[in-house]
Amino acid sequence: MALSEVALIERYFAAATAPREDVRLGVGDDCAILRMPEGRDLAVSIDTLVEGMHFLPGAEPESLGHKALAVNLSDLAAMGAEPAWATLALTLPRAEESWLQAFSRGFGCLAREHRVALVGGDTTRGPLSITVQVHGFLQEGRALRRSGARRGDLIYVTGRLGDAGLALLARQGLYVGPGQLSTLAARLDRPVPRVAEGLALGRLASAAIDLSDGLGSDLAHLCRASGVGAVIHVEALPCSEGVADYVRETGDWSLPLSAGDDYELCFTIPPARQGELEALGGRFECGFHWIGTIEARAGVRCCLADGGLLDAPIGFDHFAGDS
Amino acid sequence: MALSEVALIERYFAAATAPREDVRLGVGDDCAILRMPEGRDLAVSIDTLVEGMHFLPGAEPESLGHKALAVNLSDLAAMGAEPAWATLALTLPRAEESWLQAFSRGFGCLAREHRVALVGGDTTRGPLSITVQVHGFLQEGRALRRSGARRGDLIYVTGRLGDAGLALLARQGLYVGPGQLSTLAARLDRPVPRVAEGLALGRLASAAIDLSDGLGSDLAHLCRASGVGAVIHVEALPCSEGVADYVRETGDWSLPLSAGDDYELCFTIPPARQGELEALGGRFECGFHWIGTIEARAGVRCCLADGGLLDAPIGFDHFAGDS
Repeated sequence: MALSEVALIERYFAAATAPREDVRLGVGDDCAILRMPEGRDLAVSIDTLVEGMHFLPGAEPESLGHKALAVNLSDLAAMGAEPAWATLALTLPRAEESWLQAFSRGFGCLAREHRVALVGGDTTRGPLSITVQVHGFLQEGRALRRSGARRGDLIYVTGRLGDAGLALLARQGLYVGPGQLSTLAARLDRPVPRVAEGLALGRLASAAIDLSDGLGSDLAHLCRASGVGAVIHVEALPCSEGVADYVRETGDWSLPLSAGDDYELCFTIPPARQGELEALGGRFECGFHWIGTIEARAGVRCCLADGGLLDAPIGFDHFAGDS
Repeated sequence: MALSEVALIERYFAAATAPREDVRLGVGDDCAILRMPEGRDLAVSIDTLVEGMHFLPGAEPESLGHKALAVNLSDLAAMGAEPAWATLALTLPRAEESWLQAFSRGFGCLAREHRVALVGGDTTRGPLSITVQVHGFLQEGRALRRSGARRGDLIYVTGRLGDAGLALLARQGLYVGPGQLSTLAARLDRPVPRVAEGLALGRLASAAIDLSDGLGSDLAHLCRASGVGAVIHVEALPCSEGVADYVRETGDWSLPLSAGDDYELCFTIPPARQGELEALGGRFECGFHWIGTIEARAGVRCCLADGGLLDAPIGFDHFAGDS
């Protein structure tokens, strides 16, 4: 059966996502037409996943559909925005029905969970690559920027760090630790965007970023944007048992410090708000975990319990080393 | 010199496009933050260009930068929307400074011409592919949809048809006609989105679509969306001298009827508005050209002056034939 480009998006995706009244015209015309609620700003973010770079060839399509949307929802979460609409540009070597069905199932399931409507898209033939743009709403003037951290602010993260990195090592056969590695795979393949957490933090946090490239690298972005530095207490980093085992066995902190793909939030709060923050953290299963403090001096320093310093980790950069 | 992902977008692109007051936060955070004007709807469209599919390997980067934005602005034009913001997801085999400079020059020049601000982006390593999303404004409830054409409406196109197809034939060495082929190359490489024309048509046209896949195919989309059919008078199709020569020499109407990439607008108007439309056409260099009439019977029929019928042309479909 021949599948036209228009049919691909209309048939597999549009119906799989959430219906919304603010979508005046969805997939199928030259543009989608969308109505903004009054008194809100629009937050947008676009991200691409490329086969061989962000996922291994032959990756399971349902998880890919989930992840392609999740990494974008994570950007909205880091801004404290409420998700609304998505567009999808899908480049495929061929239109394989079973692949498309599974991909749209993963995409659609997460979209419905967050009341996201797919409003537009493009499909074309070529090496497998997935670009998603998300659109969300913000109360005017109330966004969690990277640039609001101030000296003395406390640094927190949601959830646990390093699970996705550990799952990748295991998948590549580079490390097999004691137990539960298979349960970590979901943390790599189906990251949970911290959307509700980001929305709740909107009134408390002074700055936020999501952890896609690794804590060290992403916190360094936040510090640069804020004109400050940070000290992290590595023993305070929240880790699963598997990651804790890895650190203990190898003495290597790189999983929680610099492995990417966790899609947790890293945020800062003024010390005066710590009580409120800790109370709020109780409402979320992933928890909010203190890991360090903002300092005036630039750079990210990693402290051990004995007072020693680790070298600051470097995050992942697709083009580092190119000239 | 190593170029980080963030630096790539910030350095080469953000400054190359138009500054706008409604951009509260541009490139460099987790999301861009944008303010919508009151009483307007948001129109969005996303399109991908893939090397080897939409352009030849080694294509000139300045033209690519222009075209990647132009094909999206053309979608806004077909909706009658006013361009505002763009995002860019660029997948590159390597970060080559001269390529990026030229690409951003082409992208930025067209962006400034239409007061478009680049507000976000992503760069990643992989096979060359360019995804752009554009965002524009519409008066509430006033959009040029594909679905508004009614029986008896007159069909018009802007500009001339088939130039891009002729330029592609020439570039591939498949046809060298008498004269001016080199001037046609710009029509393929640097299409002019009919933004002002689309805005002006907002109060007159009953339906519109932009011609990316070819007149026959795109008009068929419009007809299906409107639940109607169309008859085209092929001798009325506006053609450049080069395309007219080709048709005369070969007896083949496929260039103006089914070659893609012209990015002209095809639109319909109620017959009672023809006088206004013709007067309006005088304001635009590309002109508005009558080519046929909407009929109740489904399908697109192509009439010759002698009353004979051509077979309806089939447009380009990336996945046609896949099973």
